[in-house]
Amino acid sequence: MAYQIEMMRTAVALAVENVRRGEGGPFAAIVVKEGRILSRGTNRVTTANDPTAHAEVVAIREACRTLGSFQLEGCEIYTTCEPCPMCLGAIYWARADRVYFACTQADAAAAGFDDSFIYQEISIPPDQRRIPMIQHQRTEGLGVFEAWEKKEGKVRY
Amino acid sequence: MAYQIEMMRTAVALAVENVRRGEGGPFAAIVVKEGRILSRGTNRVTTANDPTAHAEVVAIREACRTLGSFQLEGCEIYTTCEPCPMCLGAIYWARADRVYFACTQADAAAAGFDDSFIYQEISIPPDQRRIPMIQHQRTEGLGVFEAWEKKEGKVRY
Repeated sequence: MAYQIEMMRTAVALAVENVRRGEGGPFAAIVVKEGRILSRGTNRVTTANDPTAHAEVVAIREACRTLGSFQLEGCEIYTTCEPCPMCLGAIYWARADRVYFACTQADAAAAGFDDSFIYQEISIPPDQRRIPMIQHQRTEGLGVFEAWEKKEGKVRY
Repeated sequence: MAYQIEMMRTAVALAVENVRRGEGGPFAAIVVKEGRILSRGTNRVTTANDPTAHAEVVAIREACRTLGSFQLEGCEIYTTCEPCPMCLGAIYWARADRVYFACTQADAAAAGFDDSFIYQEISIPPDQRRIPMIQHQRTEGLGVFEAWEKKEGKVRY
């Protein structure tokens, strides 16, 4: 566990530095492969004007650039806080091997970052959510999947 | 509803074109504010080597760049498929007003895009997930939130 502790401390130090410099929210993440740090991500939401620039997303995008791949098999992610639904989804799509996190959703909520609220919204029917999600034109939408099915030489992911 | 139908058809046409050109997966999204299309996003996962380049994320990032803001209040998002957890999270963080979608999670799963699997994983305890998520060093992690709490002049989001 000494190795994991060292990596998490690296992430925590990055996050504290991000706050000190006023470069974004109090979060950092690193992607590690075979003992090598592939990328360091810090929250950049307010400085990049990008609501998706959470530490994990920033680190995943950077690690993928480094590897020239859209997959992070064989990689571990160290993040200073339990991933929000967006970052959790990004981790699954990247197919990382494992995640280590320090603080919990509840800790984030107590600090004013309401990941828990988004997790709760997921279990509510889409049209009744705080941001209503309304379905229409499904038949036309299915035409896109039909085009995909027929497409030759497609790259699956 | 005629207006919403027109906007969804614009998104569907974009997604079909994305497949035809071999530029990524069968998904597109547009962000609309007061009747104006702010951004058009298509899936770019395999061509950009970016697992986070889902249509909604691409469209949200571009709309925020256009507005010079990390918030999409007053905006509606039209997407050809029900958002995956990553995109759903991005929509909440961007604080869009409303989402319209055509196909469902089940339609996406039938076409080989297993959003539903990720939704299921969310309800499983973190350390028992297919991608295990393991907590440690919480006390050190809380130090980041303490630094944030004390930080003067911080930009909340």
